[in-house]
Amino acid sequence: MTNVLVRNFSISLDGYGAGPSQDVEHPLGIGGNLLHEWIFATRSGRQMIGADGGTEDIDDAFFAARDSGVGATIMGRNMFGPLRGPWGENEWSGWWGEEPPFHHSVFVLTHYPQPSIEMRGGTTFRFIDGGIEAALEAALDAAGERDVLVAGGASTIRQYLRAGLIDDMRLAMVPVLLGGGERLFEDLGPSAADYECVEHVCSPSVTHVRIQRSK
Amino acid sequence: MTNVLVRNFSISLDGYGAGPSQDVEHPLGIGGNLLHEWIFATRSGRQMIGADGGTEDIDDAFFAARDSGVGATIMGRNMFGPLRGPWGENEWSGWWGEEPPFHHSVFVLTHYPQPSIEMRGGTTFRFIDGGIEAALEAALDAAGERDVLVAGGASTIRQYLRAGLIDDMRLAMVPVLLGGGERLFEDLGPSAADYECVEHVCSPSVTHVRIQRSK
Repeated sequence: MTNVLVRNFSISLDGYGAGPSQDVEHPLGIGGNLLHEWIFATRSGRQMIGADGGTEDIDDAFFAARDSGVGATIMGRNMFGPLRGPWGENEWSGWWGEEPPFHHSVFVLTHYPQPSIEMRGGTTFRFIDGGIEAALEAALDAAGERDVLVAGGASTIRQYLRAGLIDDMRLAMVPVLLGGGERLFEDLGPSAADYECVEHVCSPSVTHVRIQRSK
Repeated sequence: MTNVLVRNFSISLDGYGAGPSQDVEHPLGIGGNLLHEWIFATRSGRQMIGADGGTEDIDDAFFAARDSGVGATIMGRNMFGPLRGPWGENEWSGWWGEEPPFHHSVFVLTHYPQPSIEMRGGTTFRFIDGGIEAALEAALDAAGERDVLVAGGASTIRQYLRAGLIDDMRLAMVPVLLGGGERLFEDLGPSAADYECVEHVCSPSVTHVRIQRSK
């Protein structure tokens, strides 16, 4: 069965998945980079950026499993890039260089149609202007027997969560306070009762929690 | 030196210190009791309610240390009781029975003056209608060389935190989603930068985090 997953999404103690004032120089907002330091300390995190070394611990195990079994990815436009409004003439093709680490179709939620962008290594960015259900339908179709990953940001995950469309979510709770930014959990309302935490475990850096849909 | 402390304040994964719809039958809101189950599993938590047994683990160590060195307590009126508005003729004297577990002066924030209530065992509830600074001044005076505990609820702690008046805070992050309620961390803003997490450690039930003022 295909599942809709969230993997290693990092939030601060005060609940933010990105800090305040996101822009091209601060893609994760002010202080938001603190949310991902634990990743770049791990072996698999360092491998992702072409570096050696790194820890082989529980953090590494969680990060290494990030795309295991995943056949398609969904992300919000603000995760794809810093531009807002119509696309215009820009040639932005994501934060991840010429060969992004996805190696499958990545469906980008947007209000503005845009042609697909084919990258090296099997990643194609496909732009969906029909809403979260349309993006999920296209991603499920592309994933085949594999799972669909909702990569982020916070607002995108929150929309899928409120709609009860996430099956299994692994979060990293990072012990920092950001003071503001984009919250992951905001007025989940009754959909919260459909989820339960089935695992929580600490490394010296973060607490990993795993939440599953129980209904 | 006297410090202003928060001890074992429990919040959900989605950041709530109490669930939605607080009233006399649900003093912690709907689902809010889930936040404190870890306490009543410990030896010191069970002792507090006159029961035997319980775990002697890290949760117990954190809870047992809750009032060590504390000479006065501050709480919001909504933690003291379910009544809102003027006090009227009621004889409410807290949730804690005839001999509350404080054994010192407890300063209750309120907008409505009310005579002190002396309880058995050394607890006196004193009602302060002059705001958070006035309550802190009175509590520091009462505590002498000892520390002042800001017991809760979420809104009271948040006010002291925003004002930069908390020195050391121990929280228990409980792996449940409540979906709504009273948030501890809301728009801390720049005061967040004055705090850092100096410890975080998991039990099978919760993650304990300790946050200190660094500036």
